[in-house]
Amino acid sequence: MRPAYTDILLVIDMQHDFVADDAPCRVAGAKATIPAIARALDSARSRGWGVVHVIREHHHDGSDAETIRRHLFDDGDGVCVAGTPGAGIVDELHPVASDYVVVKTRFDAFYATRLELLLRSLGAERLYIAGTQYPNCIRATAVGALERDYDVTVLTDCCSAATPEVAESNIYDLRNMGIRCVPFPEL
Amino acid sequence: MRPAYTDILLVIDMQHDFVADDAPCRVAGAKATIPAIARALDSARSRGWGVVHVIREHHHDGSDAETIRRHLFDDGDGVCVAGTPGAGIVDELHPVASDYVVVKTRFDAFYATRLELLLRSLGAERLYIAGTQYPNCIRATAVGALERDYDVTVLTDCCSAATPEVAESNIYDLRNMGIRCVPFPEL
Repeated sequence: MRPAYTDILLVIDMQHDFVADDAPCRVAGAKATIPAIARALDSARSRGWGVVHVIREHHHDGSDAETIRRHLFDDGDGVCVAGTPGAGIVDELHPVASDYVVVKTRFDAFYATRLELLLRSLGAERLYIAGTQYPNCIRATAVGALERDYDVTVLTDCCSAATPEVAESNIYDLRNMGIRCVPFPEL
Repeated sequence: MRPAYTDILLVIDMQHDFVADDAPCRVAGAKATIPAIARALDSARSRGWGVVHVIREHHHDGSDAETIRRHLFDDGDGVCVAGTPGAGIVDELHPVASDYVVVKTRFDAFYATRLELLLRSLGAERLYIAGTQYPNCIRATAVGALERDYDVTVLTDCCSAATPEVAESNIYDLRNMGIRCVPFPEL
């Protein structure tokens, strides 16, 4: 039997290269959200929601990365190189067999990925967004979902940015668009 | 240094689940094309072309497969389940470090994938198509490339179908669209 999932928890970019203390693209606020995201994953699965992990993966030479990020591959080991530990999802949030994984190479999880097709296959209506980071992948994906007429919630206890001020200014804008921004326990 | 690739060899769906003698979705003509595709890969790499392997991968329950194929997951072990040997590219054509891999869940390699974005990043102008099978993934991808104004060549010694008649009727249509259909040595 295949389940239908009207509610989907999206967990975005919770990979070592964005989360770890010595990560090349560390988002300062990301590590602190791991416990809240782990609780959200448990709750989502027990409610019968679908879980989609959206992750970034790149070729080792950076040729499929944004031009603005290619210096990370020229001057260092790059970021989220497919097959390396840095591209792996952090242990506490590791996918289980029922979860889906969608790979992206830009900010917006809908851009040049299978996400929209997958959500249609699953019968999704409501999306709940967790992960990192607010100004880039969280915002681009939340706006992309809004544009596609999904009911979108950004989980404020499960999302992060480099500073609280950046998080707040993005939440301000997202709320003004009509996107619900609440911590998971308030759902 | 990142290479620019004006010429790209696309190798489509040369995975165990389509090629092996006991494969669930075996294409009868596919196995016989392995030596020609292996030669095309060697030649493409020595000419400095880019190589993109397009492969199919599915969730184990088939929920991200075509509705017309979901019975394969209900009545059997499915096809190209991510992480299983069946989803692996056949040994003779295995990617090398400079190659790219694009994952798809439908026929057309451009649909709900990063292929178009990747080709733009690489500077692609000319696409050469190998793999299986003619009426589905080869044709859909060749037409998708034509629609996007790529110079498209279908490599007739490197593509396959269930029967020679199916191959011929598709080559006939593709040529009438203006798509070059020749064996690799005639390039």
